[in-house]
Amino acid sequence: MKLLDIYAKMKGDIKEIEKELSQAVSTDQIILNESSSHLLKAGGKRIRPIFVLLSGHFGNYQFEKLKKVAAALELIHMASLVHDDVIDDADKRRGKPTVKAQWDNKVAMYTGDYIFAQALMLITQFEDPEIHQTFSKALVQMSVGEIEQIRDFNNWNQSFKQYLRRIKRKTALLIAISCKLGALASNAEEKIVRRLYQYGYNVGMAFQIVDDILDFTGTTEQLGKPAGSDLRQGNITLPALYALHYSKDRERLQKIVHNGELEKRMDEVIDLIRKSEGIKYAQKLAERYIEKSKKALLELPNIRERKMLLEISDFIVDRTY
Amino acid sequence: MKLLDIYAKMKGDIKEIEKELSQAVSTDQIILNESSSHLLKAGGKRIRPIFVLLSGHFGNYQFEKLKKVAAALELIHMASLVHDDVIDDADKRRGKPTVKAQWDNKVAMYTGDYIFAQALMLITQFEDPEIHQTFSKALVQMSVGEIEQIRDFNNWNQSFKQYLRRIKRKTALLIAISCKLGALASNAEEKIVRRLYQYGYNVGMAFQIVDDILDFTGTTEQLGKPAGSDLRQGNITLPALYALHYSKDRERLQKIVHNGELEKRMDEVIDLIRKSEGIKYAQKLAERYIEKSKKALLELPNIRERKMLLEISDFIVDRTY
Repeated sequence: MKLLDIYAKMKGDIKEIEKELSQAVSTDQIILNESSSHLLKAGGKRIRPIFVLLSGHFGNYQFEKLKKVAAALELIHMASLVHDDVIDDADKRRGKPTVKAQWDNKVAMYTGDYIFAQALMLITQFEDPEIHQTFSKALVQMSVGEIEQIRDFNNWNQSFKQYLRRIKRKTALLIAISCKLGALASNAEEKIVRRLYQYGYNVGMAFQIVDDILDFTGTTEQLGKPAGSDLRQGNITLPALYALHYSKDRERLQKIVHNGELEKRMDEVIDLIRKSEGIKYAQKLAERYIEKSKKALLELPNIRERKMLLEISDFIVDRTY
Repeated sequence: MKLLDIYAKMKGDIKEIEKELSQAVSTDQIILNESSSHLLKAGGKRIRPIFVLLSGHFGNYQFEKLKKVAAALELIHMASLVHDDVIDDADKRRGKPTVKAQWDNKVAMYTGDYIFAQALMLITQFEDPEIHQTFSKALVQMSVGEIEQIRDFNNWNQSFKQYLRRIKRKTALLIAISCKLGALASNAEEKIVRRLYQYGYNVGMAFQIVDDILDFTGTTEQLGKPAGSDLRQGNITLPALYALHYSKDRERLQKIVHNGELEKRMDEVIDLIRKSEGIKYAQKLAERYIEKSKKALLELPNIRERKMLLEISDFIVDRTY
């Protein structure tokens, strides 16, 4: 089963979740309604809801419950994107104007707060304290990650470990708890919950590393923004870090960075990184995370959804967009 | 028992809550640690924790549980202040530089997110779903209120009703749920929970109205900022609305507003409002809310804490700072 087949198969469910999302953010406050709908319409892969639903099959699958968890996690993702766009000073996302560009930073901040609170509303409908605790712990970690991202901006002295910790908080954690909460809401066994979390964490790490690679190797058309956007914004990712410290062009790169000529020679630097071993290194690391995610899957019951998760793992590391 | 006696009596408990607050926001992330400690040190009246604790006495009082609720509500208050300072472009609060002034808007946004998430961590330690639902519902309403505040900026056409709805969401709701959650965490009877909510709501409304009066009548020294700061920022409160529509100087005021001369003649306008019947009208309305808060109290068991809450009611409407 290919990824497109998975989406095709889940089309009906995703439509239901879209409805849940619409309902959750609808309000008679006009600005909020507009900014939230704007966000919803901007779309997205809805990958977190898919992880929630697939994980739910490893327990007592109840769509009515799972769709609320799925919507909550997608809302958290949306809220964090709105706030991120303020930090990144981003005017476009997925080729469309961001909330902060269409309105302003203030509206973006409060739209984020509002969507965040609505996500919480969905989660508080559950009685299981572990669901609440998993959710709130992840939110704390994510907000620490947001500040780390500011701290690490333009910091070429950061370690690989710092980078990995940052992407864990930025991306992997939310995917990990999507799997975990899907399983918890379906009363899956503890062992299964743990493995699905492991699966999600590793897939999430790979997902972000590949994203960071594509930012260098993709075309403007594929990315919806020029290549090297991360670096232009000061977000230094694994390919860049590797290139600076270990590539054959490292001395040339170090000189540019140390002489403060980065901004002036940005296109040259992006080109150097694109051609460097940093890309291959990052790709290898992503593959290693994918291997780990598959290992976690192998210890799960061999149901159809396990195959689907496996398919997603393979897709993530091979994707070109 | 006077207000100062109440504070004196609760000094030990408040100290414990300060500890809880410190623990909740401490992190090894340096910027976050500094910005959060900065906020904690800026202090505040800690009025929400006091409402939580006093309300707890109407059920099975357990300080260890209540201090977590109290800290969570104070953290929500703090988080909303940090985000508000971004909206208001405020450089000072309580005479000290705000997070957005000392750092920047981005740090303020994420410090708010972080403190917010930590508040959630405290609340998720409770098992009672009503506690979670009350909490998340209030957060949704508060975030809608934040956007309404932006919408109503500089809007002289807003109704009194719009103003009241806004201060409900901005202030009264959090005080109301402080009372309610204190009672819920102590397993108080449903009737009692409802009355304490009513008490808190009415006290909260009065509190904000008085705040809005003091912004006109206070001295720079009392306020820690020049009088009329709300209006200067575009936040149009009850005394101003009343003065514009019903005071004897209304035509003069309307002319200034309609001719777009407000900014130029700000000192004159503030003076007109200060001397207008708007102050008296707002004071009367605050008193009416206080009466309602006392009525809610009278239906509660006649314990010592009922007297203390009564004392707070009286203080709020008479305070001059």
